[in-house]
Amino acid sequence: MKGVFITFEGCDGSGKTTQISLLERYLRDMGCNVLVTREPGGDTVAENIRSVLLASESQVSPRTELLLFLAARAQVVDFVIRPALERGNIVLCDRFADSTVTYQGYAREQDLDWVRRLNAYATNGLTPDKTLLFDIDPVDGLSRQTDRNRMESETLDFHQRVRKGYLAESRLFPERFHVIDASANVQLVHQAVLEALKDVIKPENWKTGNCAIHP
Amino acid sequence: MKGVFITFEGCDGSGKTTQISLLERYLRDMGCNVLVTREPGGDTVAENIRSVLLASESQVSPRTELLLFLAARAQVVDFVIRPALERGNIVLCDRFADSTVTYQGYAREQDLDWVRRLNAYATNGLTPDKTLLFDIDPVDGLSRQTDRNRMESETLDFHQRVRKGYLAESRLFPERFHVIDASANVQLVHQAVLEALKDVIKPENWKTGNCAIHP
Repeated sequence: MKGVFITFEGCDGSGKTTQISLLERYLRDMGCNVLVTREPGGDTVAENIRSVLLASESQVSPRTELLLFLAARAQVVDFVIRPALERGNIVLCDRFADSTVTYQGYAREQDLDWVRRLNAYATNGLTPDKTLLFDIDPVDGLSRQTDRNRMESETLDFHQRVRKGYLAESRLFPERFHVIDASANVQLVHQAVLEALKDVIKPENWKTGNCAIHP
Repeated sequence: MKGVFITFEGCDGSGKTTQISLLERYLRDMGCNVLVTREPGGDTVAENIRSVLLASESQVSPRTELLLFLAARAQVVDFVIRPALERGNIVLCDRFADSTVTYQGYAREQDLDWVRRLNAYATNGLTPDKTLLFDIDPVDGLSRQTDRNRMESETLDFHQRVRKGYLAESRLFPERFHVIDASANVQLVHQAVLEALKDVIKPENWKTGNCAIHP
């Protein structure tokens, strides 16, 4: 595929969404074709699944939760991400398969190998070219949040397990993961994001409008 | 578990829902505790998933479809079916795991072993005590339907594959499956249903109110 697929991972309140906006603006100013999406969500069906998942009044089975995340992922991969990559876009995705491994695998203690196998099915084998992990102490991250959904209302212990899971994943896949200190100020983090992506998004190609260089 | 778990399978228009109602009334008249549920659906979360699935305007990835059915199943197993079986109820379920094997496996040609493995995960290993397969030529079945949802709008060829898939499953699990000729009139089919269940629901226990005998 011609495009570049970049995923943003991290605990709630780690500033992923802010950094995606900054990067999106930066890339658009450079003339790149950028597609921004979020998980769960990204098309009508996936956004409807997101609503089911995040409705805070409902008791949800852990297996249901995992399967819903995967269902939304399969949808957005087929109808949003792959078509954009085939058009040569830079795709910025707020959460992807690593969130499932971390939240449902590490934090909810479902079998990691099984979760990975389910991910491979849901994504049809699509892996990000680069994953930026916004690492922050959950105490600091959660203090940035005001209106919490069902996932964010979990205990601090749960969010500590999420953080540990993410860091474990980053050590398993050091080529793909880039860990960014998300406790720094917004502009410093943005600079770290640009630095992390310099190998997959080549500035020297910006003038031609073809700034997405597949590794 | 103390209860009995009976699933109703078959092509659209095979009369499953009518037969479930007749059996439910019959069993209640005998003093049995009966719980009727349907797939996908059965609790708030699962009904919301059902709405996402059956909304006819949306294009749905085959993997998304499969994962959504499984998500709804995990939910209804944990919060509806298992609790009812533990209370000793007779649970009548309109479609269950065999629908997934048949529709997504046989008819949509996804890998059967993988679909079975996903089912085992979603159901947490719960298998029906008896599965009644309402067999009918899809041409006759579909002619009984008026307002069709997304699944029912598939081609006749698709529904023919569904029928073949169901019959193949019934041959693989002859102990559990009972094939019923659904082209007969409603009362004859009802008698065939009672006959098929005589080993799992013992009339001689009805007087004690404990009519559900686990095989």
